Amino acid sequence: GFAKVDHYRAIHQGFPEVIFGLGKRPEQTAVIFERLARTGLPVLATRCTAEAFAAVQAKVPEAVFHELAQVITLRVPEENERPIGTIAVVTAGTADLPVAEEAAVSALAMGCRVKRIFDVGVAGLHRLLSKRNELKEAQVIVVIAGMEGALASVVAGMVDIPVVAVPTSIGYGANFGGLSALLGMLNSCALGVGVVNIDNGFGAAALAATIVRSGSREAGRFHDV
Amino acid sequence: GFAKVDHYRAIHQGFPEVIFGLGKRPEQTAVIFERLARTGLPVLATRCTAEAFAAVQAKVPEAVFHELAQVITLRVPEENERPIGTIAVVTAGTADLPVAEEAAVSALAMGCRVKRIFDVGVAGLHRLLSKRNELKEAQVIVVIAGMEGALASVVAGMVDIPVVAVPTSIGYGANFGGLSALLGMLNSCALGVGVVNIDNGFGAAALAATIVRSGSREAGRFHDV
Amino acid sequence: GFAKVDHYRAIHQGFPEVIFGLGKRPEQTAVIFERLARTGLPVLATRCTAEAFAAVQAKVPEAVFHELAQVITLRVPEENERPIGTIAVVTAGTADLPVAEEAAVSALAMGCRVKRIFDVGVAGLHRLLSKRNELKEAQVIVVIAGMEGALASVVAGMVDIPVVAVPTSIGYGANFGGLSALLGMLNSCALGVGVVNIDNGFGAAALAATIVRSGSREAGRFHDV
Amino acid sequence: GFAKVDHYRAIHQGFPEVIFGLGKRPEQTAVIFERLARTGLPVLATRCTAEAFAAVQAKVPEAVFHELAQVITLRVPEENERPIGTIAVVTAGTADLPVAEEAAVSALAMGCRVKRIFDVGVAGLHRLLSKRNELKEAQVIVVIAGMEGALASVVAGMVDIPVVAVPTSIGYGANFGGLSALLGMLNSCALGVGVVNIDNGFGAAALAATIVRSGSREAGRFHDV
Amino acid sequence: GFAKVDHYRAIHQGFPEVIFGLGKRPEQTAVIFERLARTGLPVLATRCTAEAFAAVQAKVPEAVFHELAQVITLRVPEENERPIGTIAVVTAGTADLPVAEEAAVSALAMGCRVKRIFDVGVAGLHRLLSKRNELKEAQVIVVIAGMEGALASVVAGMVDIPVVAVPTSIGYGANFGGLSALLGMLNSCALGVGVVNIDNGFGAAALAATIVRSGSREAGRFHDV
Amino acid sequence: GFAKVDHYRAIHQGFPEVIFGLGKRPEQTAVIFERLARTGLPVLATRCTAEAFAAVQAKVPEAVFHELAQVITLRVPEENERPIGTIAVVTAGTADLPVAEEAAVSALAMGCRVKRIFDVGVAGLHRLLSKRNELKEAQVIVVIAGMEGALASVVAGMVDIPVVAVPTSIGYGANFGGLSALLGMLNSCALGVGVVNIDNGFGAAALAATIVRSGSREAGRFHDV
Amino acid sequence: GFAKVDHYRAIHQGFPEVIFGLGKRPEQTAVIFERLARTGLPVLATRCTAEAFAAVQAKVPEAVFHELAQVITLRVPEENERPIGTIAVVTAGTADLPVAEEAAVSALAMGCRVKRIFDVGVAGLHRLLSKRNELKEAQVIVVIAGMEGALASVVAGMVDIPVVAVPTSIGYGANFGGLSALLGMLNSCALGVGVVNIDNGFGAAALAATIVRSGSREAGRFHDV
Amino acid sequence: GFAKVDHYRAIHQGFPEVIFGLGKRPEQTAVIFERLARTGLPVLATRCTAEAFAAVQAKVPEAVFHELAQVITLRVPEENERPIGTIAVVTAGTADLPVAEEAAVSALAMGCRVKRIFDVGVAGLHRLLSKRNELKEAQVIVVIAGMEGALASVVAGMVDIPVVAVPTSIGYGANFGGLSALLGMLNSCALGVGVVNIDNGFGAAALAATIVRSGSREAGRFHDV
Ligand SMILES: Nc1ncnc2c1ncn2[C@@H]1O[C@H](COP(=O)(O)O)[C@@H](O)[C@H]1O
Ligand SMILES: Nc1ncnc2c1ncn2[C@@H]1O[C@H](COP(=O)(O)O)[C@@H](O)[C@H]1O
Ligand SMILES: Nc1ncnc2c1ncn2[C@@H]1O[C@H](COP(=O)(O)O)[C@@H](O)[C@H]1O
Ligand SMILES: Nc1ncnc2c1ncn2[C@@H]1O[C@H](COP(=O)(O)O)[C@@H](O)[C@H]1O
Ligand SMILES: [Mg+2]
Ligand SMILES: [Mg+2]
Ligand SMILES: [Mg+2]
Ligand SMILES: [Mg+2]
Ligand SMILES: [Mg+2]
Ligand SMILES: [Mg+2]
Ligand SMILES: [Mg+2]
Ligand SMILES: [Mg+2]
Repeated sequence: GFAKVDHYRAIHQGFPEVIFGLGKRPEQTAVIFERLARTGLPVLATRCTAEAFAAVQAKVPEAVFHELAQVITLRVPEENERPIGTIAVVTAGTADLPVAEEAAVSALAMGCRVKRIFDVGVAGLHRLLSKRNELKEAQVIVVIAGMEGALASVVAGMVDIPVVAVPTSIGYGANFGGLSALLGMLNSCALGVGVVNIDNGFGAAALAATIVRSGSREAGRFHDV
Repeated sequence: GFAKVDHYRAIHQGFPEVIFGLGKRPEQTAVIFERLARTGLPVLATRCTAEAFAAVQAKVPEAVFHELAQVITLRVPEENERPIGTIAVVTAGTADLPVAEEAAVSALAMGCRVKRIFDVGVAGLHRLLSKRNELKEAQVIVVIAGMEGALASVVAGMVDIPVVAVPTSIGYGANFGGLSALLGMLNSCALGVGVVNIDNGFGAAALAATIVRSGSREAGRFHDV
Repeated sequence: GFAKVDHYRAIHQGFPEVIFGLGKRPEQTAVIFERLARTGLPVLATRCTAEAFAAVQAKVPEAVFHELAQVITLRVPEENERPIGTIAVVTAGTADLPVAEEAAVSALAMGCRVKRIFDVGVAGLHRLLSKRNELKEAQVIVVIAGMEGALASVVAGMVDIPVVAVPTSIGYGANFGGLSALLGMLNSCALGVGVVNIDNGFGAAALAATIVRSGSREAGRFHDV
Repeated sequence: GFAKVDHYRAIHQGFPEVIFGLGKRPEQTAVIFERLARTGLPVLATRCTAEAFAAVQAKVPEAVFHELAQVITLRVPEENERPIGTIAVVTAGTADLPVAEEAAVSALAMGCRVKRIFDVGVAGLHRLLSKRNELKEAQVIVVIAGMEGALASVVAGMVDIPVVAVPTSIGYGANFGGLSALLGMLNSCALGVGVVNIDNGFGAAALAATIVRSGSREAGRFHDV
Repeated sequence: GFAKVDHYRAIHQGFPEVIFGLGKRPEQTAVIFERLARTGLPVLATRCTAEAFAAVQAKVPEAVFHELAQVITLRVPEENERPIGTIAVVTAGTADLPVAEEAAVSALAMGCRVKRIFDVGVAGLHRLLSKRNELKEAQVIVVIAGMEGALASVVAGMVDIPVVAVPTSIGYGANFGGLSALLGMLNSCALGVGVVNIDNGFGAAALAATIVRSGSREAGRFHDV
Repeated sequence: GFAKVDHYRAIHQGFPEVIFGLGKRPEQTAVIFERLARTGLPVLATRCTAEAFAAVQAKVPEAVFHELAQVITLRVPEENERPIGTIAVVTAGTADLPVAEEAAVSALAMGCRVKRIFDVGVAGLHRLLSKRNELKEAQVIVVIAGMEGALASVVAGMVDIPVVAVPTSIGYGANFGGLSALLGMLNSCALGVGVVNIDNGFGAAALAATIVRSGSREAGRFHDV
Repeated sequence: GFAKVDHYRAIHQGFPEVIFGLGKRPEQTAVIFERLARTGLPVLATRCTAEAFAAVQAKVPEAVFHELAQVITLRVPEENERPIGTIAVVTAGTADLPVAEEAAVSALAMGCRVKRIFDVGVAGLHRLLSKRNELKEAQVIVVIAGMEGALASVVAGMVDIPVVAVPTSIGYGANFGGLSALLGMLNSCALGVGVVNIDNGFGAAALAATIVRSGSREAGRFHDV
Repeated sequence: GFAKVDHYRAIHQGFPEVIFGLGKRPEQTAVIFERLARTGLPVLATRCTAEAFAAVQAKVPEAVFHELAQVITLRVPEENERPIGTIAVVTAGTADLPVAEEAAVSALAMGCRVKRIFDVGVAGLHRLLSKRNELKEAQVIVVIAGMEGALASVVAGMVDIPVVAVPTSIGYGANFGGLSALLGMLNSCALGVGVVNIDNGFGAAALAATIVRSGSREAGRFHDV
């Protein structure tokens, strides 16, 4: 009885309750994971350690661990089952990878297509400029950057596609645990940027997936009318 | 030569350079407004005083002033010219109105349909619950709230639609100029929330419009395939 | 002589000096616990590790350890000895449990009745709405929530009962160690909310108990006059 | 249509919607005031300027202006109509008076008895010690202090009565607009302290009134059983 | 005797004591200005109002007022008297102009050549990319930007020239008076960036001039050896 | 050559260079300690671990370790060698002891008399009031308190003696590492309070000792004239 | 009855209640001033406007206004009535003068001798070094500096005399209203520094006067024994 | 493919991509190091642990570990290969050494001459004054200081050479992880100071090297013309 699994949410939000592993003991995560597994729907657990995965695997052997992302998944939709719309996941540096992988794996689990474009930070702009076309093919772009977080502004200035900006805590000193990137992204002089919490790759994926679904649904409506 | 009007942006972002009136003298705003008016495209100027409008009107008599929103517009698309997709603009209290109107007028100028749902803050939940159906018909919901900003979480928990959250500086004392609402929205426990800067109604409209356009475009692609 | 046990407070505050285990060595906690045990009154020690409990138990074998709450108690009043008035302890998520248990166990030790209502955060409002009647039967409601802390506003808006709000440090990034929930609760747009320190379940219980006692005493007076 | 008057709240919270004058134009305040006046219930409007009062008085001549408190009232209950329970309003310095009067007038409007104990800050402790008996007769104590806000701790340490602490923005420099008093009160080493927002005299009165009502109601129940 | 004019500094720092007008009364500024004018060296006064200039002009008729920059100068070196080395002054938006002009006029007064490159912020990157060659011809680049301050990183990534970054207070909400741009610039992922105080155009010019002088001097030494 | 021992300071400041152990390896501390020991003057090293002491003792066997204070001393003056003037070291709670001992041992090493008055925080005022006479006999009072730090104001209000206030990091949540006590002490409404850094027991002792010496010297002068 | 004049404090703190003019209306200040004037003791009122002085003068014609200091005094002791001990008041820049004068006039009113040493900030160290002897003759040094506040460390490193450090709000941008100088002074690497609130010249004088009195009293005791 | 090595930068910035070891696993660092080693250019990796060095050495045996600096280098230019221009690296205390060595080793790797001047903080000014001539011979001075960071102002006030200021996180309590030194340096009242991130010795070296190169290049141009 320590947690109320929220099956209702699965219905009205398009995917089921997601397990947030931080501060849960491996056994707790495993118990909830198993309960959600019984619904037959995809299951997603974020911020999970290798120990948590061991506990989950003992109960649900088909569960898959994405180590870099610290994510456990079950029944991620196959590529041909995924709705239209691609989410580009873009990072500034190699240190942003864990957050990027949390975003990418979560988006895949929510049934989106994902395109990874990593290590294209603004200190060497040619790297980003060479990816311009790939960026323009996405329906939503998730930009993940620490330090000054300038990448979100530069990307949003290049395209006319919604940008979900994820500040990361990468850096030290006056980055104040991600505050510098957070404030930079909130004050972006470019248009079309929505910000999520520091290091919240999962939240970015959830917003991006909601946008993709919202577009598809709308697409449906459009042709109905 | 004091400003470089960015016609290029009009093309790749779907709407033209927007004038940011804060810190500009009325005459400066009027000069830029006139230059943009000559493009034949819609024109939008935010954070404008009545004095700025007087200066604009002297040069561009058809310009319209939205006093509460502090916005000047020209050639806002007619209702039947607007793309599919409605943006719901939701506020917690009456004091949030100026920010809400900045968002609403901006969204209209960008060619979106707008549905206003005002004064439904969480202190009296029945007000919000009675609007559930109207909310579900929107393609994007812009939630505008000051003080603790809890409305964004509650709305996002009720629907499966992208929520653009705008913290406002409404409040005093420990709201620290909007910080309380900002942090509340960034830490939302509900999914599908993207945050913009404090009091940034215009930025919220721009993100919402980008999402709507992105969905429509995608809709096109969908049926092409 | 390293601590002055404050027997005087037991009298004028209705319960004895409470031991704050943080930063005390197990042996120090045990010595003070034993000294208080000799008074014959209930004893309460918060923020205690399992090691501290081992040291206490060696001296006071009847002491009880509440592991999740990190609290040690002695002579908690039996249910029929407890004054009228129930304290509802409400949490947003499962991660808030340790703080909630600190509050609940402390309130029981102070002679209050306690009703636990856990995991009813605002992201899925139906969970909270279904508990409306249980909430209305309490004399004080302790609301415990991290992240954006919106639960305090929503609960206070539903009832006409004092709400003691406890922000928790649950979350990451821009929660800044509980600041987001703290500011959210201080800026609550609902009426009847008093805030205590981040993670301070014990302090919330003490305030709630003081309110309950204050009401009972007043009740007495009322009929005397 | 710019504001939804919340009559429902009057019923379940024991007093009607309160008008928050900050950021409202005099005419707006007057319109809402008149609408609430028609309910026949008491009316309370806080943070009102003399201009706002002039506008209200033109529509509701019986309205009363409390200048120091910046509060407008209508139909404040007579002394013999007020429930049992006295709220002591205690201030540290003379500069805290406006906040104290906002609290006192609001509490009176909500039907409480009020006892004012002003200018008893901790720099001259004898002033406070000489008021010990008056303090002990209250059912709730509202402590209002700026600068270091130490008065809340000292008062709460002297009595076994709920303390509602209101930090004020009185001071300069490192008081950071009331932050010093706010943090001081949140970290109080005394028990039984609930904190409200900086300068929020009204919010303190609302919490205190809720406690008083909660006690009386409970008193009824007690004797029913 | 209210100020000690520091003639010594003129000698060892290459230019004389600079008058900081903020918080000085016009008459005070004028008295000091006249005293420095008597040295026969260039004179520079920053943060001066039109009133201050009127007072100065009454005593020193040849003084020149740079209104946008809020700077008063006397005996600015002619173009052919200026040392080698050009300082490029680059701004993100038109609102940064006053700070940019403070920098430009100060640098001219200190004997540097100045190249103004304005309104090339990162939201429309093509504007900046088209200026690449002009940037590469400078010996020092002063980058002035508010909001997220990303321009400093992008410029520093394009060239191998010292960048002096000036965050401005332009923006609102979560820019917290320039904090967002300041943190962004301090956390720049590009190399070769030194940061000065928010809005400190003068300080940037002083550092840039010191670098230019240092290079020239070194150049001299180089050929001596 | 990794450190310049500053013998000059011993002369003009009345006691020698003090070793700050934080961030030094045991061996580094020991080398500097030995070098200072050779001067024949008292030696003081603060923030030292047991490992650092072991390393020191191997080189200087007469060195003494004060474990609670984390201080190592050599040649602390005997009681009869100490100048007139007593420093009272007063703490609010038992958790403040390490800081208090750092202050007390440092003051003794600097040749002052010390009177310890511990655990007299404001939550139980009678404890402090009963020490009034002891306080009045001191020449300087060092007040050490965490949480809200109110003790400094209350003590300073009781006496006419300089108070050196040391905020401690004791507490959690909204104490923000000692910020609450620091701001409280800086905003003290009582007169005669000088504040040092959070947890800086040593710095408080140094200031107190400077005051004592300054008084004695002055005393000397007084009678010379 | 709006203020309790605290005659008791006059006795045990050596000088009477001081009027804090900030937030008081001229008439209020005048009423309290007159009441204190009747005691025959010196009177001191700080943070007073010219209007407040006009109101005071109408009631107490002998009152004196110190415009730059914003201080009103009555019966300041003559030079030969002042106790031994000189307070040096040292400032970094001319903009610190108002705070310095508040300190100087307050110290004179409290019966101290005062030596003003102004405009000797660390950017031109020779100015300070040339004052070394004057500094060494003081019994307490009050150092007043804004911006980085480095002057306190440099002065304290030069002498073995208590330094009372007053950070000022002079500066802009990242001085954050005096925070930079405040933190600099609290973290001083020099010994013997006690810090008061930002811009609190009066508080510095009160601490300095307490130190001077404490030394004199001690001097007496010394020779008694 | 986890990192894009940026050979392009080596050309236009004068030295190759630098490896940032923080958050990289030893093996990752080693793989990138080896790839850069193959270019034949100097290689620099900062923030590297001994474990990272072991992994690098296994692949590139000539790599050198600078333990205190936590830096790994390859092919550092010989002294006679270094351009004109000396960088003085100056520290306030011994605790600043790791940052100073990161700066010094990085500057050497970038081909600069380096002069170390350590432990000359402002608490004992004579230490710094005795180094005046050595300072004046540098082309750039890197000043590294924690706590109040006053050394940057004092040094910049003594010379007419660019100062690159590095705040360090050395200190505790109200140094807030280096914030005190950072704000102090940003608010320096001396001219010619550019600030980099807290503890960023590498960034300071990169800026200093860019200044040196810029001067030399300019020197070349100067004599060409
Ligand atoms: N990485 C994450 N960051 C923030 N929120 C998350 C994350 N993963 C899951 N969540 C949210 O946490 C909720 C579950 O919290 P809990 O009940 O504590 O397991 C889910 O419904 C998600 O909304
Ligand atoms: N002084 C006050 N401080 C904080 N909240 C207030 C105050 N006065 C009224 N309120 C709240 O503001 C609400 C009305 O806000 P509004 O709809 O903007 O007029 C009321 O229901 C109260 O909860
Ligand atoms: N400039 C000042 N800054 C801070 N506190 C002051 C100042 N001037 C006077 N005070 C204090 O304010 C008290 C009077 O406050 P009040 O009763 O509000 O007039 C005096 O006893 C002083 O302790
Ligand atoms: N100590 C350091 N502090 C800040 N940035 C650094 C440091 N060392 C290297 N860098 C930067 O980090 C970049 C490499 O980052 P990465 O691709 O994550 O290895 C380099 O190009 C440098 O600009
Ligand atoms: Mg865009
Ligand atoms: Mg949702
Ligand atoms: Mg309620
Ligand atoms: Mg109490
Ligand atoms: Mg560069
Ligand atoms: Mg005192
Ligand atoms: Mg000293
Ligand atoms: Mg210089």
